[in-house]
Amino acid sequence: MLLPDLRDQVLRANLLLESEGLVKLTWGNVSGLDRDRGWFVIKPSGMPYADLRAEHLVILDLEGAVVEGTLNPSSDTPTHRILYREFEAIGGITHTHSGHAVMLSQAGVALPCLGTTHADHFYGTVPVVRELTPDEVAEDYESNTGRAIVECFRQEGIDPIAMPACFQKYHAPFTWGKTAMDSVKNSVALEVCCQMAIGTWQLAGHRHQELPDHLLQKHYLRKHGPGAYYGQGKGGQ
Amino acid sequence: MLLPDLRDQVLRANLLLESEGLVKLTWGNVSGLDRDRGWFVIKPSGMPYADLRAEHLVILDLEGAVVEGTLNPSSDTPTHRILYREFEAIGGITHTHSGHAVMLSQAGVALPCLGTTHADHFYGTVPVVRELTPDEVAEDYESNTGRAIVECFRQEGIDPIAMPACFQKYHAPFTWGKTAMDSVKNSVALEVCCQMAIGTWQLAGHRHQELPDHLLQKHYLRKHGPGAYYGQGKGGQ
Amino acid sequence: MLLPDLRDQVLRANLLLESEGLVKLTWGNVSGLDRDRGWFVIKPSGMPYADLRAEHLVILDLEGAVVEGTLNPSSDTPTHRILYREFEAIGGITHTHSGHAVMLSQAGVALPCLGTTHADHFYGTVPVVRELTPDEVAEDYESNTGRAIVECFRQEGIDPIAMPACFQKYHAPFTWGKTAMDSVKNSVALEVCCQMAIGTWQLAGHRHQELPDHLLQKHYLRKHGPGAYYGQGKGGQ
Amino acid sequence: MLLPDLRDQVLRANLLLESEGLVKLTWGNVSGLDRDRGWFVIKPSGMPYADLRAEHLVILDLEGAVVEGTLNPSSDTPTHRILYREFEAIGGITHTHSGHAVMLSQAGVALPCLGTTHADHFYGTVPVVRELTPDEVAEDYESNTGRAIVECFRQEGIDPIAMPACFQKYHAPFTWGKTAMDSVKNSVALEVCCQMAIGTWQLAGHRHQELPDHLLQKHYLRKHGPGAYYGQGKGGQ
Repeated sequence: MLLPDLRDQVLRANLLLESEGLVKLTWGNVSGLDRDRGWFVIKPSGMPYADLRAEHLVILDLEGAVVEGTLNPSSDTPTHRILYREFEAIGGITHTHSGHAVMLSQAGVALPCLGTTHADHFYGTVPVVRELTPDEVAEDYESNTGRAIVECFRQEGIDPIAMPACFQKYHAPFTWGKTAMDSVKNSVALEVCCQMAIGTWQLAGHRHQELPDHLLQKHYLRKHGPGAYYGQGKGGQ
Repeated sequence: MLLPDLRDQVLRANLLLESEGLVKLTWGNVSGLDRDRGWFVIKPSGMPYADLRAEHLVILDLEGAVVEGTLNPSSDTPTHRILYREFEAIGGITHTHSGHAVMLSQAGVALPCLGTTHADHFYGTVPVVRELTPDEVAEDYESNTGRAIVECFRQEGIDPIAMPACFQKYHAPFTWGKTAMDSVKNSVALEVCCQMAIGTWQLAGHRHQELPDHLLQKHYLRKHGPGAYYGQGKGGQ
Repeated sequence: MLLPDLRDQVLRANLLLESEGLVKLTWGNVSGLDRDRGWFVIKPSGMPYADLRAEHLVILDLEGAVVEGTLNPSSDTPTHRILYREFEAIGGITHTHSGHAVMLSQAGVALPCLGTTHADHFYGTVPVVRELTPDEVAEDYESNTGRAIVECFRQEGIDPIAMPACFQKYHAPFTWGKTAMDSVKNSVALEVCCQMAIGTWQLAGHRHQELPDHLLQKHYLRKHGPGAYYGQGKGGQ
Repeated sequence: MLLPDLRDQVLRANLLLESEGLVKLTWGNVSGLDRDRGWFVIKPSGMPYADLRAEHLVILDLEGAVVEGTLNPSSDTPTHRILYREFEAIGGITHTHSGHAVMLSQAGVALPCLGTTHADHFYGTVPVVRELTPDEVAEDYESNTGRAIVECFRQEGIDPIAMPACFQKYHAPFTWGKTAMDSVKNSVALEVCCQMAIGTWQLAGHRHQELPDHLLQKHYLRKHGPGAYYGQGKGGQ
């Protein structure tokens, strides 16, 4: 993808945060990566979405140095940078404070797969990543947030492509995907699945069972597996 | 109805899914049937509603063969096809993942008639259709979803015209009606009735009683019965 | 008020139902009364709000005879007619199936005054009117709905001007006011107060107390009492 | 700031109340202060936001005398006046009846810091201010509302800059900030944090813990502390 196209996609992806109801004020950011160049494009810090233009976006390399742009990049930029370095198959990252996903983050409750809406996007339970220690906060809060996410996925043996989302305890969700736009779609799906789960638990209480495994396999794989047949392309959505 | 008119109605019905808040991303589809010809018109798979044009819609016959259209039809097309073949009085089908209807689907909770909003559209309890077995999934997931719906209605002796809706366990609602547009209206009504029921149960708990039968009869029949007097036409809505 | 002005106000009041989120599909209606003439203007039955024009509205007298208009009036017209005859100070009526007000209606739970938002509009507890008997339904469902509301207010000694709202059990809310527009504002306020009450009860449970009486008096009377000082006119709002 | 600019900001801030979903009908008001002149600009009472123009705004001095404007100022004007006199670092005030913040107000439940969304705006627990006594209501309801807020902050030793929000019991939230626009942003944040807290409590019940102190410090101070690095300016947002 040419850099102007990446800029344009990252702009549109950031604007979707507001139109999809995932953010209030300036509480969210999307980035997209050109892995060949090793550069990523990200929203500037604290800028209202209504004012955002493609030329405001900041371009950085994977060492964290600004390549292009005069504004401060999002304060969460070091988290994005770590995730791009460590999760080598991803090309886009979204961070929001969307309401129902924050409820699970604040409660420290992981999201099991309760139905096919979930299985269409997330292959299993969306994990809760631990909060940082005082030392980790003092040393480098945003980079260490990324490191805690990576640590969680490695320790629990979770594939970040099959599980493109997590909650950080007391904080909020992060999602990712092959592109910036995919990462926003996963944010939309995560917020909806959290809302559905809260209602399902209210109705079913402890009697509730997770989606049987053969249905999880079917729904995830018909969209994301080798023989995917959902959508217009080959290989799925 | 002429085929261009059917195409146009199916297009407008699909666009209503988004404007009525019943879908996120591309999670829903509407079809409409020309029963004389034995052809139905359906949304293409995975296409955003904002991009959808009448010429994108796919036309199939009731054997599942594509009659017109170059795009892949909705992955749920075999479910629609089975329902059209088995429920002979229906002319439109809607499938969404609308939030509150999914909560009941995931919890496996049927929706009893708790008030007149429900009685205006659904003549009794909206049933939960069982999830498929591993063999049924492996054999033909989407066709067997339709067959499980038909099986449920036949075994429980439910008339699909008087009860134009069901939940599939772990999945989501399906609704239908005389036309594509009617099926979307039933989807709107089902989502609202689910939301109202969740709140009613929260307020009233187990003390709650269903709508007395004489009120169910009155509300359903003043809209749908032989002497219906709701709306501007003869015979109801 | 001239009849064209009344028509115009009733049109705008009906359109507000949709823009304020109080209705889905065609589930609501507003009427306005010219008490000198003894005529009221009401929405036609089953017509989508987007299609509604002033000339579609139906004018009836207080005996129920159509004075002007070729469409069927709302199926709830007899309820409006009874309320205008029996509640002599009112000039507008709104009926909706707004979500949270229906939850209380279906649960049969009256709405006590839990705070000042409520006290600004409703002077005390919003009552639940009983459902009709089989005989009342068979005889004249919609007129008897109005009679049950009047019976409730007379038996409990409630002044319909100070309490311009009720829930009908298993059904939905009715509100009224000095004008059609006032009755819609009371519908907006009732829906919000129901939503706030459900959340308040969830948080506070049985420990909850109602708004102390001196605050109810203050808030209601600063808007509606003889020395009202809220708004730009004399005598309140 | 020039007076026309302050008028313009107060107008835009009032219009945000509606577009951000914080108010229904005319249930909210924003003011902004020119502390050098000792004048503040406020919404007129009971005027719909859609009709509001800059010239409708009323300007008063801190004694409560009208400096400019022919309309009645908001009935809550004396509350604003007291807060400007007693909280010397603030320059804008917002009062709404936003739904979830009213739920906590009516339930009399303070809002502890449950996560970083909260910590980004509010440095600790948002307090509940007591309701007024009958004598306080009779003497001067709106001024005494301001005095009760000030009393609460002084008695509990709360810094109104670090905690720019409170709930008044049985009533609704008040927020403030350096400017009118800041006070609206704090209203947006408070409403969202209340909604998130209600969901968090539903999920986690009594097992729930507050945000650890080192994370509260980090999040509040990276936006509002001396070395703030969020946003494009120096010293934070």
